[in-house]
Amino acid sequence: VPGVSSRLFGALANNQISVILITQASSEHSICFALDPADARKAREIIEDEFSVEISGGKIDQVAVEDDMSILAIIGENMRRTPGISGTLFGAMGKNGVNVVAIAQGSSERNLSIVIAKQDLSKALNTIHEVFFLSDVKTLNVFLIGTGLIGGTLLNQISEHSHQLEETQQLKINVIGLANQDAMVFDSQGVDLANWQKLLKSKGEPTGIGAFVQSMKSLNLSNSVFVDCTASPEVVGFYEDILNTSISIATPNKIASSGDYTLYKKLKETAFRHGIKFLYETNVGAGLPVISTLNDLKLSGDRIKRIEGVLSGTLSYIFNQFTSEQSFSTVVKEAMDRGYTEPDPRNDLNGMDVARKILILAREVGYELALEDVEIEGLLPQACLNAPSVEAFFNELELADDHFEDLRKRADEKGQKLRYIAIMDEGKAFVRLMSVDIDNPFYGLSGSDNMIVFITDRYSDRPLVVKGPGAGAEVTAAGVFAELISLSHFLG
Amino acid sequence: VPGVSSRLFGALANNQISVILITQASSEHSICFALDPADARKAREIIEDEFSVEISGGKIDQVAVEDDMSILAIIGENMRRTPGISGTLFGAMGKNGVNVVAIAQGSSERNLSIVIAKQDLSKALNTIHEVFFLSDVKTLNVFLIGTGLIGGTLLNQISEHSHQLEETQQLKINVIGLANQDAMVFDSQGVDLANWQKLLKSKGEPTGIGAFVQSMKSLNLSNSVFVDCTASPEVVGFYEDILNTSISIATPNKIASSGDYTLYKKLKETAFRHGIKFLYETNVGAGLPVISTLNDLKLSGDRIKRIEGVLSGTLSYIFNQFTSEQSFSTVVKEAMDRGYTEPDPRNDLNGMDVARKILILAREVGYELALEDVEIEGLLPQACLNAPSVEAFFNELELADDHFEDLRKRADEKGQKLRYIAIMDEGKAFVRLMSVDIDNPFYGLSGSDNMIVFITDRYSDRPLVVKGPGAGAEVTAAGVFAELISLSHFLG
Repeated sequence: VPGVSSRLFGALANNQISVILITQASSEHSICFALDPADARKAREIIEDEFSVEISGGKIDQVAVEDDMSILAIIGENMRRTPGISGTLFGAMGKNGVNVVAIAQGSSERNLSIVIAKQDLSKALNTIHEVFFLSDVKTLNVFLIGTGLIGGTLLNQISEHSHQLEETQQLKINVIGLANQDAMVFDSQGVDLANWQKLLKSKGEPTGIGAFVQSMKSLNLSNSVFVDCTASPEVVGFYEDILNTSISIATPNKIASSGDYTLYKKLKETAFRHGIKFLYETNVGAGLPVISTLNDLKLSGDRIKRIEGVLSGTLSYIFNQFTSEQSFSTVVKEAMDRGYTEPDPRNDLNGMDVARKILILAREVGYELALEDVEIEGLLPQACLNAPSVEAFFNELELADDHFEDLRKRADEKGQKLRYIAIMDEGKAFVRLMSVDIDNPFYGLSGSDNMIVFITDRYSDRPLVVKGPGAGAEVTAAGVFAELISLSHFLG
Repeated sequence: VPGVSSRLFGALANNQISVILITQASSEHSICFALDPADARKAREIIEDEFSVEISGGKIDQVAVEDDMSILAIIGENMRRTPGISGTLFGAMGKNGVNVVAIAQGSSERNLSIVIAKQDLSKALNTIHEVFFLSDVKTLNVFLIGTGLIGGTLLNQISEHSHQLEETQQLKINVIGLANQDAMVFDSQGVDLANWQKLLKSKGEPTGIGAFVQSMKSLNLSNSVFVDCTASPEVVGFYEDILNTSISIATPNKIASSGDYTLYKKLKETAFRHGIKFLYETNVGAGLPVISTLNDLKLSGDRIKRIEGVLSGTLSYIFNQFTSEQSFSTVVKEAMDRGYTEPDPRNDLNGMDVARKILILAREVGYELALEDVEIEGLLPQACLNAPSVEAFFNELELADDHFEDLRKRADEKGQKLRYIAIMDEGKAFVRLMSVDIDNPFYGLSGSDNMIVFITDRYSDRPLVVKGPGAGAEVTAAGVFAELISLSHFLG
């Protein structure tokens, strides 16, 4: 209807009400404008008065006022000659969960204005600064829970590398919130990482994962990531809620990715829908590019037929050390003394950890499997598993030395070596002790290296192989650290 | 100034001119609106008349009319409740080089309207359909030049997999333009790949890279990629121009990445600025994830200290076959007969190809090196290099058999094997024949596999290793194919 906008803006002008922003999309049955909140009530009265006939006649629906809004304008010369500026702007808003309520950009175009909720203003401002002012240091806001071996190592790595990261990548990793089972600390300027243990002890409030997540959400910071370094199922219970507030997750915790399939799927979809990330690369092979290589193969149209892997650094070490020189139980004992095994080495030797890893890879390939579907050939005789203590276990293991020596000898006679290998073959997953000969990629394994072999439509005659150190707090923490840095590039 | 919009829209309304879209950004000194092109002249007169006093007084600058524009509106319920829609929209516009001239989105928000140049309309429409309607098949528009061994294999692979790609990834790879030295063919519906050789022969027009690029640009299609399967420096001369029109490039041609450093740098920057891709992963290790692994390490804050690689499938094969059973010249002859070498095997044995590859990796790490900076230890005696024909070369090579046998024996006596290895060490690059023992990762190499070893700050005690088939038309074409599929996901 020609004349409506004229009457609308005429009535407002006659009452000295300034309109800050106007936008009317094509074929839209509404016109939207922004004004000083102090004028809102008066403006509504004026409009209702001016259009009283149309309103009572049902020709105009309603005059809706939205409160607590802010206008954010980006101003620059030649913006319209540069495709991509609006893409960068709105992409960053989306990844940070900022709803853009209205947009106005005219063709003279030195100004692109958006209307957003007031509570998102500082988050949006920070985001815009970081994406448009390359000289500005980008900030990744980290909320870390679990300060055990991996979490503690990660905090130390962040602390050690913070200076170098700012210099070389213009990136600041700010740990805003920190919690363990006993205490939590928040500091919106960033927790002092040189003293994180002390701070948790002295200033930490009593904790609770619910309270921690609540505080993180109400801070509403840009580029936020939740890092779960616990092994707690309770924490995993909060993942979906966290992702739904547009906060990414990075975690070495395998519970979500190897637990209930529906949850695993839902978390991935939730992250995707919000344009953020749910990262768990360190679940398999620590920092080695295993899940990312698998996803790249899939994304590039390849079909993964089979995966073989030595996926436990501990078991890799044990079988690499197990020669004619020393008995199996001696090797396991030595590995435990060096801190390479779990406190109870049976938690490595029972194959469950390896089974979880091959399960995760099978799921990433696209198979809907559960842990029960993975066939595990255990290494240990029942007596070892039943032993009531670690000491008793070693007594039983010594009795099994002849059995292991027999296996080793038989392999040796055929020029083969023993390897504990996890396999995914067209959707079937299993874990077993195998005797491999010199042509097998696993034959040459040494140290505590992991090795992952992909057999695909493209890599069919000869496989694609990734090899390297894949266990231990240092490399696992470094893997999470790497995810955080990549995430900051993705968000920024 | 209150009253301006009222007078503006009043004057237009009084003359029965409908305004389709209005947008006035905050603090903007202009107001922008869209109307039927037929009304443009009249509207200008009306406005100049209404504001004649302000115009002559210099208070209003000018009335600017922009012609040949289209309005594109996306309409949907609850758009504003979904952060990320505008990000997706404007991101896709940016990657396709579509300038958004004006934007209007009101707070009732079932409609987001953009104004773009009319010539970009069909490109923009296609793009929007592909990013928002997941049921729609995405299309990647390919312009391929060079139909030799790799290009031809790639065309066959695209043809073979097209059905499966549409089914599993909702992706259509459409070869729109195709050229070799003699002819070129364009088909906006997609060249019939079952008959590409025939079509080029029968319907192909005389070619010229300039004409090919010009036709590609004027088609102005969404999601376009230029695939260079030639080894021509002339084609490389067009890369910058192509990237500047927001068309991505994927190429196994090593000339750009291992030639002039300034050009290499400029091409990368140009692609980055336009939000598109310049892809050359197959320059090293064919389809193996070598450059991508290197970039991921860098991006995740690791520092690459040293790279070691067996980077030539041909030389890998030759040294893996070279045992006490047969002489070096016999092995080379056999490799040539099997088609594993260049027509003149000296082009493999002179080390230049390997030198180019390690140069590319050094540059990706961040070093400003040229080919002259790579120290190459040649394999062949001068007489072999001087030989006037391939036949004469083999005669000379037989004379050198004792020399190679001597090298092999000495290695063998120490339990070592001969490998032709390229190394980048803290910015220095060299290529040499080395004798490696059983602990060395290259010792266990077999077939024509490539192997790349990364030693970084993080992978310092034990390296990160990638291994697999890295040569031949099939895997190289498959690598380019993989890049095309990944690119389509990136663009869409």
